[in-house]
Amino acid sequence: MRIGIVTSGGDCPGLNAVIRGAVLHGQESYGHAFMGFRGGWRGATLGDAIPLTRQTVRGISKLGGTIIGTSRTNPWEFGGEGAVKDSMERLGVDAIMAVGGDGTLAVAKRLHEAGIPMVGVPKTIDNDLNATDMTFGFDTAVSIATDAMDRLRTTGDSHGRCMVAEVMGRNAGWIALHSGMAAGAHAILIPERRTTADELVGWVESAKLRGRAPLVVVAEGFVLEGEVAAHSGRGLDAFGRPRLGGIGERVAELIESRTGIETRSTLLGHIQRGGVPTAYDRVLATRFGMSAVDLAEQGSWGSMVALRGTSVIEVDLTDALDEPKTVTESRYLEAQRLFG
Amino acid sequence: MRIGIVTSGGDCPGLNAVIRGAVLHGQESYGHAFMGFRGGWRGATLGDAIPLTRQTVRGISKLGGTIIGTSRTNPWEFGGEGAVKDSMERLGVDAIMAVGGDGTLAVAKRLHEAGIPMVGVPKTIDNDLNATDMTFGFDTAVSIATDAMDRLRTTGDSHGRCMVAEVMGRNAGWIALHSGMAAGAHAILIPERRTTADELVGWVESAKLRGRAPLVVVAEGFVLEGEVAAHSGRGLDAFGRPRLGGIGERVAELIESRTGIETRSTLLGHIQRGGVPTAYDRVLATRFGMSAVDLAEQGSWGSMVALRGTSVIEVDLTDALDEPKTVTESRYLEAQRLFG
Amino acid sequence: MRIGIVTSGGDCPGLNAVIRGAVLHGQESYGHAFMGFRGGWRGATLGDAIPLTRQTVRGISKLGGTIIGTSRTNPWEFGGEGAVKDSMERLGVDAIMAVGGDGTLAVAKRLHEAGIPMVGVPKTIDNDLNATDMTFGFDTAVSIATDAMDRLRTTGDSHGRCMVAEVMGRNAGWIALHSGMAAGAHAILIPERRTTADELVGWVESAKLRGRAPLVVVAEGFVLEGEVAAHSGRGLDAFGRPRLGGIGERVAELIESRTGIETRSTLLGHIQRGGVPTAYDRVLATRFGMSAVDLAEQGSWGSMVALRGTSVIEVDLTDALDEPKTVTESRYLEAQRLFG
Amino acid sequence: MRIGIVTSGGDCPGLNAVIRGAVLHGQESYGHAFMGFRGGWRGATLGDAIPLTRQTVRGISKLGGTIIGTSRTNPWEFGGEGAVKDSMERLGVDAIMAVGGDGTLAVAKRLHEAGIPMVGVPKTIDNDLNATDMTFGFDTAVSIATDAMDRLRTTGDSHGRCMVAEVMGRNAGWIALHSGMAAGAHAILIPERRTTADELVGWVESAKLRGRAPLVVVAEGFVLEGEVAAHSGRGLDAFGRPRLGGIGERVAELIESRTGIETRSTLLGHIQRGGVPTAYDRVLATRFGMSAVDLAEQGSWGSMVALRGTSVIEVDLTDALDEPKTVTESRYLEAQRLFG
Repeated sequence: MRIGIVTSGGDCPGLNAVIRGAVLHGQESYGHAFMGFRGGWRGATLGDAIPLTRQTVRGISKLGGTIIGTSRTNPWEFGGEGAVKDSMERLGVDAIMAVGGDGTLAVAKRLHEAGIPMVGVPKTIDNDLNATDMTFGFDTAVSIATDAMDRLRTTGDSHGRCMVAEVMGRNAGWIALHSGMAAGAHAILIPERRTTADELVGWVESAKLRGRAPLVVVAEGFVLEGEVAAHSGRGLDAFGRPRLGGIGERVAELIESRTGIETRSTLLGHIQRGGVPTAYDRVLATRFGMSAVDLAEQGSWGSMVALRGTSVIEVDLTDALDEPKTVTESRYLEAQRLFG
Repeated sequence: MRIGIVTSGGDCPGLNAVIRGAVLHGQESYGHAFMGFRGGWRGATLGDAIPLTRQTVRGISKLGGTIIGTSRTNPWEFGGEGAVKDSMERLGVDAIMAVGGDGTLAVAKRLHEAGIPMVGVPKTIDNDLNATDMTFGFDTAVSIATDAMDRLRTTGDSHGRCMVAEVMGRNAGWIALHSGMAAGAHAILIPERRTTADELVGWVESAKLRGRAPLVVVAEGFVLEGEVAAHSGRGLDAFGRPRLGGIGERVAELIESRTGIETRSTLLGHIQRGGVPTAYDRVLATRFGMSAVDLAEQGSWGSMVALRGTSVIEVDLTDALDEPKTVTESRYLEAQRLFG
Repeated sequence: MRIGIVTSGGDCPGLNAVIRGAVLHGQESYGHAFMGFRGGWRGATLGDAIPLTRQTVRGISKLGGTIIGTSRTNPWEFGGEGAVKDSMERLGVDAIMAVGGDGTLAVAKRLHEAGIPMVGVPKTIDNDLNATDMTFGFDTAVSIATDAMDRLRTTGDSHGRCMVAEVMGRNAGWIALHSGMAAGAHAILIPERRTTADELVGWVESAKLRGRAPLVVVAEGFVLEGEVAAHSGRGLDAFGRPRLGGIGERVAELIESRTGIETRSTLLGHIQRGGVPTAYDRVLATRFGMSAVDLAEQGSWGSMVALRGTSVIEVDLTDALDEPKTVTESRYLEAQRLFG
Repeated sequence: MRIGIVTSGGDCPGLNAVIRGAVLHGQESYGHAFMGFRGGWRGATLGDAIPLTRQTVRGISKLGGTIIGTSRTNPWEFGGEGAVKDSMERLGVDAIMAVGGDGTLAVAKRLHEAGIPMVGVPKTIDNDLNATDMTFGFDTAVSIATDAMDRLRTTGDSHGRCMVAEVMGRNAGWIALHSGMAAGAHAILIPERRTTADELVGWVESAKLRGRAPLVVVAEGFVLEGEVAAHSGRGLDAFGRPRLGGIGERVAELIESRTGIETRSTLLGHIQRGGVPTAYDRVLATRFGMSAVDLAEQGSWGSMVALRGTSVIEVDLTDALDEPKTVTESRYLEAQRLFG
């Protein structure tokens, strides 16, 4: 069988380990051949692809990003299933392995229903898929954010400042929750929870009273009391205009104006998603890539891989389209007990 | 309630996060006080303890080791339950939280049966406890080993050498399995699996043939074909004498003599267990410490915490005494597909 | 002798190693005692100080920040030399070791002239002092910036984007120059050099043409063609108003609008100055602290330590007040040969 | 001009940055072409070489090792200057850039005298060349050793053990000196200094008395009192036989037997020389590669590059053959003040 791989959506540490795991296992165990569609669904509709051989994937599991590129292209703007089928026929590709988030997997589901043999590998750096215990990339993002906060803290301590770190997470606060717990943050602000300004000020002042330089973690999708959530995660001001500056900056302003404590914010941004994946993510991603090939070998079209406990299992592609896995109240309250 | 904490056995990244999680949560949520017995069970029998307060545990979750010290002391060589009860009475300690591996937890079980209120937190850097999906410390050890192999590989590539890395794992090969998968090793040798010299040589030569510098990971407890396993994991030679040098060196000699490929071995040793814990281990250990306090608050004596999927649950202390969780055949075969 | 240590200005990796080196060497070799003034010159004027003993400085050379705190306080707003002399008398302090940048060292010079025995240790994370070949903290900042760019690059490659990284450097572009060279940037923009928009666009397009995702490093003090430099390093727009957003964002907008290449900017911010110092900075800072004690022991008041080649030497405090050491044309042209 | 590059001797972080710096600068500034001889002088005598283009050297400065391979081949065992000249003629190579240690540079000198246009780049991970203030690779080795000791220390502290770390350095103790200073070691043992067992025991016991877990760093070439130095750095026992085990193990045995303190040794080995170079080493190596091309362009045959202060200068190849730069008494005594 010749399998075409698509990586789509934002890049995520571990994508290359998925590709390597799939190619090595598929070639050695089953004799499959692999093509990599370049630049996400764009490559799949245009037939822009490169062969993926043992040689191509050599040593790539420790590289960030994806060697076949990615994009947010919607295939229905480029001919949809017809174009994809044409590409596959032209390139002799029999099936597609789609690696991506809920958007990508929805596409994969629809293409599957249109008759294209399709298996999926879930990918979300935010770890917000109900279908799987963990997604690769999340552990790397949490590590980078934690390391950054370990650094910010020493500056806060030296100057007696409050430090605010803004991390990824538009709809789910998992990165903020885990990195904040790991770094010993005094407050964690996430989209799922409407923390009031008074609560926040209380935690910050309590930490300050005990002689600490307060550390606050904010997920980009957090909405401040009195602001209206906007798609961009930036909120609207009282006149309904998008706020300038990120949520981290606005939280810092609020803290400084309410407490008088000098406060600085740092937006971690793109450094959270690139570079060398952690060992955890390399192992998980490699196993996902290998198991997705097993699904293809078994003809389990329309399914995808997932982690349950320590096992990689098969679930339906539709499982990826469930409500996102947001931070539960019990997990938030658990973390909150360490605030202040 | 006043709770005494014991950390016992080999040190492990995350121990301090357990202590911090327990103290902060216990003090803030329930008003408990905490004492730390110094140097494992030694401190518990002698009554050698320090108060653990919010101030004491400040900022410690990112420190390796354990601030209260550890040892391999057997309490029955120092008075057993009687001595422990005396210490507790003298210090006003009502219950003990024991953090340790199967040996420590067996001690905890026995003390519990002797009437001492006891809760447990499992600790094994080898991740070989059936009662829990994961133990803290393991992720840090795998990270360090993977990072070391990423480094060894570039030396191997530059000189056309085979590189052998010996990692921890006397009875279970999880560290070798995960770090080997993460680093893309061409062979992984673990105690659970009697790999023959021919198999090993086959993998090494196959990698060499494809132009790679072969990378081999060996768990310290691996037993070479023709050698007899010894308690020390060092094996016996043909005369029944313990072999000099570690298993890594002997594997390197075998490879060099059988294939003619210049081979170097590196024993990672103690660097695998010390230093800054990964974010993953800090979060898991913090949650374990907090949940163990919940067990104490509920009076669930004789129980311990464990990870199941993404939830921290309660299991019986006896569950820690099951057969160790060794690498299953299916997990090994999964990894083996990437060898050679 | 009793020596008071002041750390003043922005925090910088290595400050604690200076303190430790001074205290251990001063106490063991000469029997000196040490006090740490808290929060920079504020502590020196108010007499707010803690004893610094062998115990206090234990293990601190690997900690970021400064254990005695820092501030940008100007002592002449708090009583000047009179207040400092009073503090010293009250605390029995005979001499001051001032650790700081050009501002701090100018203060030290003036206090020295007012009769206060004073030795200096130069500190600037920007490495822009002519008096010394290197300052501690710079190597750590360059390491962190380089690591961040290694990460950004994989995201750029995966999406075919241009990535812009804004690093520290208001007046001197050394951090940008070194991290950009280390990370293989396609353009480096520094305050010392008025790069035109056409030059920049040329480098970016040349990299893109060769199939690279362009990586651009901008020092915060860089001034774009057509903008007017402002003290804040933020520039003024055509109406003379300070520009919103950092220079990194504006450079990204220019690149995207002129080339059509999707471009993202990241402001590294405070993570560059905190956290564990590199081994290089720990060694240099330790040697500086030790040598500053030697200066005090010799009564070389009004002097400070500096690195010349591999030797720590004595220079006059006034040497720190020379023109800043900015990036020379030859060093910039050397780097520029690798652009595009 | 077509320049052939040779990397020879042990691998060293930064070799790839030398190659990239030379190729990019040589091609863009002067229109030179480059060949890489494979496997050190072996490739130069056999004419085994690959073209080095802008594409070949893309992104390699952050990779450990050398993409053209290395070896310890002596060219006079493979035809000497005659064979090298034949290779050069066959491949159209006009000059050679030799990157290596004193052995390699002696070869380069001799080939230069035999009429082969030759420039040199000094390389020694031990930093023991008088001709240059610093060599690339050293900073990376010191970083890795320091990081390892930071880890070992937490294990020592938790168990109350003395930890011994054996680092590289057969003839010069720079790596031990710098990593030991950075990590706050209580004793540093180097080949240049015959520390007595009594001195060592004194430092260890003094640290223990103050409640510290002693940390001892030993360079591999250190010779214990009463042992005879051997070429292998392993020493001879009382019967003149090479001692089994490394010097680290023997030092650990001595400490344990003399002080009764439980002691563990770790041999850092090959992990010190591989993997991602530090930013410092990447910058220095890039500058060395670029400047060596300038030497070739100017026809400065028989010369090599060196660092003096912050400048890259030209020195004679013979300067590399001076007495090695060993640790001076003053630098050792400076470090020694922090022992115990």
